[in-house]
Amino acid sequence: MTRARELGLRVLGTTSPNPPVGAVVLDAAGAVVGEGATSPPGGPHAEVHALASAGELARGGTAVVTLEPCAHTGRTGPCADALIAAGVARVVVAVPEPTRLATGGAGRLRAAGVDVELGAEQAAAAEGALAGWLTGVHEHRPQVVWKVATTLDGRVAAADGTSRWITGPEARAAVHALRATCDAVLVGSGTALADDPQLTVRDAEGRTADRQPLRVVLDRRGRVPTTARVHDAAAPTLVSRAATPAALLAELFDSDVRRVLLEGGPTLAAAFLAAGLVDEAVVHVAPTLLGAGAAMVGRLGISTITDALHLQVTDVTRMGGDVQIRLRPTRHTGWTASTGGGS
Amino acid sequence: MTRARELGLRVLGTTSPNPPVGAVVLDAAGAVVGEGATSPPGGPHAEVHALASAGELARGGTAVVTLEPCAHTGRTGPCADALIAAGVARVVVAVPEPTRLATGGAGRLRAAGVDVELGAEQAAAAEGALAGWLTGVHEHRPQVVWKVATTLDGRVAAADGTSRWITGPEARAAVHALRATCDAVLVGSGTALADDPQLTVRDAEGRTADRQPLRVVLDRRGRVPTTARVHDAAAPTLVSRAATPAALLAELFDSDVRRVLLEGGPTLAAAFLAAGLVDEAVVHVAPTLLGAGAAMVGRLGISTITDALHLQVTDVTRMGGDVQIRLRPTRHTGWTASTGGGS
Ligand SMILES: NC(=O)c1ccc[n+]([C@@H]2O[C@H](COP(=O)([O-])OP(=O)(O)OC[C@H]3O[C@@H](n4cnc5c(N)ncnc54)[C@H](OP(=O)(O)O)[C@@H]3O)[C@@H](O)[C@H]2O)c1
Ligand SMILES: NC(=O)c1ccc[n+]([C@@H]2O[C@H](COP(=O)([O-])OP(=O)(O)OC[C@H]3O[C@@H](n4cnc5c(N)ncnc54)[C@H](OP(=O)(O)O)[C@@H]3O)[C@@H](O)[C@H]2O)c1
Repeated sequence: MTRARELGLRVLGTTSPNPPVGAVVLDAAGAVVGEGATSPPGGPHAEVHALASAGELARGGTAVVTLEPCAHTGRTGPCADALIAAGVARVVVAVPEPTRLATGGAGRLRAAGVDVELGAEQAAAAEGALAGWLTGVHEHRPQVVWKVATTLDGRVAAADGTSRWITGPEARAAVHALRATCDAVLVGSGTALADDPQLTVRDAEGRTADRQPLRVVLDRRGRVPTTARVHDAAAPTLVSRAATPAALLAELFDSDVRRVLLEGGPTLAAAFLAAGLVDEAVVHVAPTLLGAGAAMVGRLGISTITDALHLQVTDVTRMGGDVQIRLRPTRHTGWTASTGGGS
Repeated sequence: MTRARELGLRVLGTTSPNPPVGAVVLDAAGAVVGEGATSPPGGPHAEVHALASAGELARGGTAVVTLEPCAHTGRTGPCADALIAAGVARVVVAVPEPTRLATGGAGRLRAAGVDVELGAEQAAAAEGALAGWLTGVHEHRPQVVWKVATTLDGRVAAADGTSRWITGPEARAAVHALRATCDAVLVGSGTALADDPQLTVRDAEGRTADRQPLRVVLDRRGRVPTTARVHDAAAPTLVSRAATPAALLAELFDSDVRRVLLEGGPTLAAAFLAAGLVDEAVVHVAPTLLGAGAAMVGRLGISTITDALHLQVTDVTRMGGDVQIRLRPTRHTGWTASTGGGS
């Protein structure tokens, strides 16, 4: 299942609005004979890829998948039928299918005599590649990952507005890799005007990647000029005048966006945080001090320590000279990965 | 030598103005037969303790010490003579004695036919327990360790001034352990007035430790009342009106302080940082956001990103729900541990 999760993560950012699923097929003796992950929309699902690479070796074997195989015919045929046709004896599933449309895969498999296990290492899969898609299912909005680069003393820009580069090349490379896993990258007009970022996925040599997330600028007053780099030809761009973070996310959800990277400044970060619309934070802390400049987060309306917004650290990694801290808010939204997929 | 360094660290905070040295004695076959560390002033040095526990087994053996054994008769006899009398065949030393007064130990040992190796793992020892004492030798001031507890967004207090508790019990226990390694603990009048801290070393149950560092309040205008908790009977307290951080450190150095924990607020932190008088930073980052409140560091006179004060991360450790980041400034002061002890 660890391998299946990895396969799903590899296609994160390329499958929306479909879920990025990973699948591994083992032969009857337990040896890996096939691997697969979801193709971009319209292409085959993970199970189909894994079965194709396994061929006849799948017969009597086991399929390990991060999401329950679908039972409906959409742009591709039902994966449950493909598994039955391949003669698979057992299917191990992490996350049970939470949508009514696609549900029934486990039932169809069992009816055909296939042994099905649901909920294997479910939380890890639900918090992994599937998190954005599940947020869409349960909250009808994309997952929001907030990324910020800060000095040790919580400054995201110096007093004169300069902010390049706070962090080193390793952290910046990690940001480009993170962008590549997202369907959209978002800034406010303040950042577009101050930094004029291009917001594309580029490698260490500055080469632009083939697939680019949608660039989104939240600019209610239309202040960002068309000459801004965010409007260049390197990637598509959406300028939104949505009045609130929730309204913007609804707009993006309708455009099939399931995972957004929030790269805005303190104003937008505060707006999303105050609205409870940040699902994960990726904070790159540089070992520098400024003593002045824009703070990491604008006003949240919090005046006393006991009202502080709480998160929990999920990972700490040194990157070059910097430290990356990943966190999740501890507040409870409608669903959590560990309480299951709602099925 | 690793063990000798550990022994030195165990007595850090109890030996000033003497160096906290660690010593291990091996018998002729290389087995550990004695261990020791510097006693409080007036008591035996590390080598003497280690030789005493080794007894006759030291004969023909090796002594491993973090600092070159002294050759002068102070409150105790010369350690070099003790090693010669014990019949030790070889002495391995990390840091060569940098003071003229005590120098000559290696020479005296060699003259007596003892094999002496100087500079073994020198940097690790010089950056470890001996750092404060060496700072005293080279800069005639105590080593300054700046400790601060901050939210993820760089706030050390909420807008209403509340700051208890930003970090969890594990981080707070680490602060008490850190205090115990220091000769003095320092705050400004702002912190004394806002938080009324007791500034003592206490265990998890709140019991006050036997040995307490000197409490120092920098209060140029005499604003802190005698009823403040820092003036209770639990530990000695010095109220200083020193005009500058440098003047205060000179005052403390003359009182035999070799290692100070700076626990002041943003004003004092900025004053020490701007003066280049912070040798190490211990930052406890809580996974919380406030969006307002006192910033971690007051004005440093820095207005553009390229002028940021640079440090380097030496350690990152998760403590309970918090993250501890240890750092050292990358600026060069008069000496560095790796360029040696000046001998
Ligand atoms: N270090 C980093 O990681 C990092 C990242 C980004 C930015 N920065 C720095 O941050 C500074 C810019 O900060 P900023 O706060 O102005 O940038 P921002 O948060 O990206 O943009 C703020 C603007 O977004 C617009 N906006 C649209 N919808 C909003 C809503 N619902 N709520 C609030 N605002 C909304 C507002 O302008 P309208 O009212 O006109 O729509 C607002 O002025 C720059 O100095 C930049 O260098 C640093
Ligand atoms: N989270 C944490 O780790 C932490 C730690 C400490 C404090 N805090 C918070 O910080 C806030 C207090 O901040 P603060 O900046 O006022 O505290 P502070 O830095 O401890 O004290 C500042 C005062 O020190 C005096 N001082 C003496 N010599 C000085 C010098 N050379 N340079 C500058 N000042 C000197 C000044 O008063 P005089 O001119 O009268 O001498 C100054 O007002 C409180 O809200 C407290 O809760 C948080």
